Amino acid sequence: MACHPALRFGTVSMLVLAASAASASDLQEQARELFEPVPSTIPALRDNPVTPEKIDLGKALFFDPRMSASGVFSCNSCHNLATGGDDNMPVSIGHGWQKGPRNSPTVLNAVFNIAQFWDGRAEDLAAQAKGPVQAGVEMANTPENVIATLNSMPQYVEWFTASFPEEADPVSFDNFAKAIEAYEATLITPAPFDAYLNGDEAALSEDQKEGLALFIDKGCASCHNGVNLGGNGYYPFGLIEKPGADVLPPDDMGRFAVTETADDSYVFRASPLRNIELTAPYFHSGVVWDLKAAVQIMGDSQLGADITEDEADKIVAFLRALTGEMPEVVYPILPVETAATPRPTGEVLP
Amino acid sequence: MACHPALRFGTVSMLVLAASAASASDLQEQARELFEPVPSTIPALRDNPVTPEKIDLGKALFFDPRMSASGVFSCNSCHNLATGGDDNMPVSIGHGWQKGPRNSPTVLNAVFNIAQFWDGRAEDLAAQAKGPVQAGVEMANTPENVIATLNSMPQYVEWFTASFPEEADPVSFDNFAKAIEAYEATLITPAPFDAYLNGDEAALSEDQKEGLALFIDKGCASCHNGVNLGGNGYYPFGLIEKPGADVLPPDDMGRFAVTETADDSYVFRASPLRNIELTAPYFHSGVVWDLKAAVQIMGDSQLGADITEDEADKIVAFLRALTGEMPEVVYPILPVETAATPRPTGEVLP
Repeated sequence: MACHPALRFGTVSMLVLAASAASASDLQEQARELFEPVPSTIPALRDNPVTPEKIDLGKALFFDPRMSASGVFSCNSCHNLATGGDDNMPVSIGHGWQKGPRNSPTVLNAVFNIAQFWDGRAEDLAAQAKGPVQAGVEMANTPENVIATLNSMPQYVEWFTASFPEEADPVSFDNFAKAIEAYEATLITPAPFDAYLNGDEAALSEDQKEGLALFIDKGCASCHNGVNLGGNGYYPFGLIEKPGADVLPPDDMGRFAVTETADDSYVFRASPLRNIELTAPYFHSGVVWDLKAAVQIMGDSQLGADITEDEADKIVAFLRALTGEMPEVVYPILPVETAATPRPTGEVLP
Repeated sequence: MACHPALRFGTVSMLVLAASAASASDLQEQARELFEPVPSTIPALRDNPVTPEKIDLGKALFFDPRMSASGVFSCNSCHNLATGGDDNMPVSIGHGWQKGPRNSPTVLNAVFNIAQFWDGRAEDLAAQAKGPVQAGVEMANTPENVIATLNSMPQYVEWFTASFPEEADPVSFDNFAKAIEAYEATLITPAPFDAYLNGDEAALSEDQKEGLALFIDKGCASCHNGVNLGGNGYYPFGLIEKPGADVLPPDDMGRFAVTETADDSYVFRASPLRNIELTAPYFHSGVVWDLKAAVQIMGDSQLGADITEDEADKIVAFLRALTGEMPEVVYPILPVETAATPRPTGEVLP
């Protein structure tokens, strides 16, 4: 119920804003209460110090298709850094040409989400990284085979040792996941909206500012707030009016599968909106290709708000101000296999 | 018949070697007669001037999975620049989880091959680039859909216009292929063996020099010579003794399918050997994972030479001196789709 319009403008401490508030417009001040810019440095991770060695290792793992049973898919296949950190498909195609159950979300800025996956079932990116690699319809691998693959290549063993120098047994599935998490923490994309929040009134166009004001006034920011304008809370999809079965398939009950609590039926993590311009199609069902249409569906289903064509255009203009600058990614050179490396297999197990 | 041992040491002009021959060892001189180092600049292409704009466009196309019908495969999927320019599978997995008929060769230094594909059916890399994108078991796309996809994204249209500035209709399937060819021409990997050919006697270890001498003396260099130590001529696989049906499947008659000449039965382009350490499994059938085993099969089938274990080890040591330095590849940021972009489809047509 946190997104009920009455709760829209909760009490927010103004202390942190005091320093620069003098020169800020009302809209800018209002935005600073609701949203946060991405930080200028790589965020710290719980129980996982981010080091240059770990980032490099994580990048190699992220791009290595040998982490899948078939040798076809890497993390980057469905979270492609060339195309907004996702794969631009309704649902991903994985092992054996099987389709995944939900749209692949972007990995960009995912470190700022409160939890991972559409239903928040992974508490952090390290927990998330262990999922797709084992999912039968995605990479269809096993932790044992991942570790055997990594141990078969001396270069990987060296990199793990350098990344986890205190550990007697550095090549582990936990550390595989931690290295990927460390790399993903670097995938932060400062956008014009951050410049605006950081004090540059001119960083948004007039249309974008009107869109921002509408985004706040209509109630979008009730669920889509914080650093990622979403990704930090759980809400029923169809709070006011359930969308059609194509957009909200009845058999995917969202967070209910995680908590087994009736209240969580059709509850999903509010989608983070950074780089939303780059990550069509939209929603967990991945059936809506047009961003304006997605905005209007949200207006109907979550807010009961009458969003006009012109208003939707302005909100979309604002959302485009969330398209950030990608960090430069030098494509990794991966370790070469040895005789001990498990062979790829495209076999589909029943 | 060009690889008959009697033809091993043909007449080669010594003129180009005169300048530095004074300080070169006999082995070095012999090597310079048979092999050529990679050039220090991007090679010129026929009818396709290489410009920075075209290279950047070609790189984007090379990495863009939207060039496939499904949105799953890019050129880089099977010619992965992270893993030696190939995919480390016996045969690639493509559209609908179908398997390709032959092992994917490396794209690295492919510009120096006399023609492309195992049977040389494409005269150059531009002709090659048009193949997999249309092959039903690979990317399963059509030229029309590729062009519609490119035209739907203004950024691509701009890039084509900048790459082919003289042309009224720059976004064409021919230019798609030319841009990829231009990018691939940059994928050259200077190796220790090039340093050796260029005059650095110390660039090879003693084992590698012995391996080089064996590579020449046993007759390997009869077919594997030139810049790519192969890739420049066609030879029957099984000249002396046909290998087993696993290595040489009877239903793949190689160049016969191209020329329809009986003499071309089981004739293939001699495999280029640069970066061979990185591109297991070997042969067009992709069934041999061990490089030493591959060397021994070649000794038996092509030369009738008795290659001892020790000799094979030394030849492998030499082949490792062909592992080159990859150019740094900055991962591209691809244009974003629009409402006009054709949707990906994983559907497998009969």
